[in-house]
Amino acid sequence: MDQYLQAALDEAKKGYREGGIPIGSVLVHKGKIIGRGHNKRVQEGSVVLHGEMDALENAGRQPASVYRESVLYTTLSPCPMCSGTVLLYGIPKVVIGENRTFMGEEDLLRSRGVEVEVADNQECVQLMQQFIREKPELWNEDIGV
Amino acid sequence: MDQYLQAALDEAKKGYREGGIPIGSVLVHKGKIIGRGHNKRVQEGSVVLHGEMDALENAGRQPASVYRESVLYTTLSPCPMCSGTVLLYGIPKVVIGENRTFMGEEDLLRSRGVEVEVADNQECVQLMQQFIREKPELWNEDIGV
Repeated sequence: MDQYLQAALDEAKKGYREGGIPIGSVLVHKGKIIGRGHNKRVQEGSVVLHGEMDALENAGRQPASVYRESVLYTTLSPCPMCSGTVLLYGIPKVVIGENRTFMGEEDLLRSRGVEVEVADNQECVQLMQQFIREKPELWNEDIGV
Repeated sequence: MDQYLQAALDEAKKGYREGGIPIGSVLVHKGKIIGRGHNKRVQEGSVVLHGEMDALENAGRQPASVYRESVLYTTLSPCPMCSGTVLLYGIPKVVIGENRTFMGEEDLLRSRGVEVEVADNQECVQLMQQFIREKPELWNEDIGV
């Protein structure tokens, strides 16, 4: 597996071990990970810190030029909030672990010129499937269902 | 002015007094404010806590049914991140103080069935104009420019 997607998956697994929602993300600027994160709904009672948002938050305040040269890696297809955030900051590329368990706003991203790559990684799929089986209500809450 | 938009403006002014970006928001459920917030870029070094996001975060974890009966008030037209969050949680209506200083994703919201109301409030416009005059770089950073 790509090393950055692996780093995002490591974050997702950390979230799973914490009893949280196992979605992880890293923000990569010119080959260097500048932010790592995972969903914090359970751990911090947060409704905005999805994995992608947490990675961006942990990267801290960056000039627009940095976002414009960055790639966001996420284990799961990004929801409307996280996709909107990609658009806000002008992140030009998103690499997605899988979109079988949840299909996010990939079409919207592509329609705005964002490059979207789907790895269709089995380990990402299995982790989400296991979580959704175990805690379906928590998953629904996270996606507003 | 509508009492809820006034509450959002009060949040924006609080942010201004703190040296932050003066955008405020409240989430209203069945006539009751359940979350208040303002942009926290300066105060908390946050890249995700726009006014709307802060209001949602402060409302805490809510079931989908609550979001579906809520109205989000914000002093400024919501950016892609905040608009995406409205879509994620299925918030059916957004009331916007003004969209003269910044035009957000109102068309996207409407295209997904969200009711969008623009108050075109002069006090909201003046507060943003004053802030953008005083701190243009900070404003640009907040909208990824």
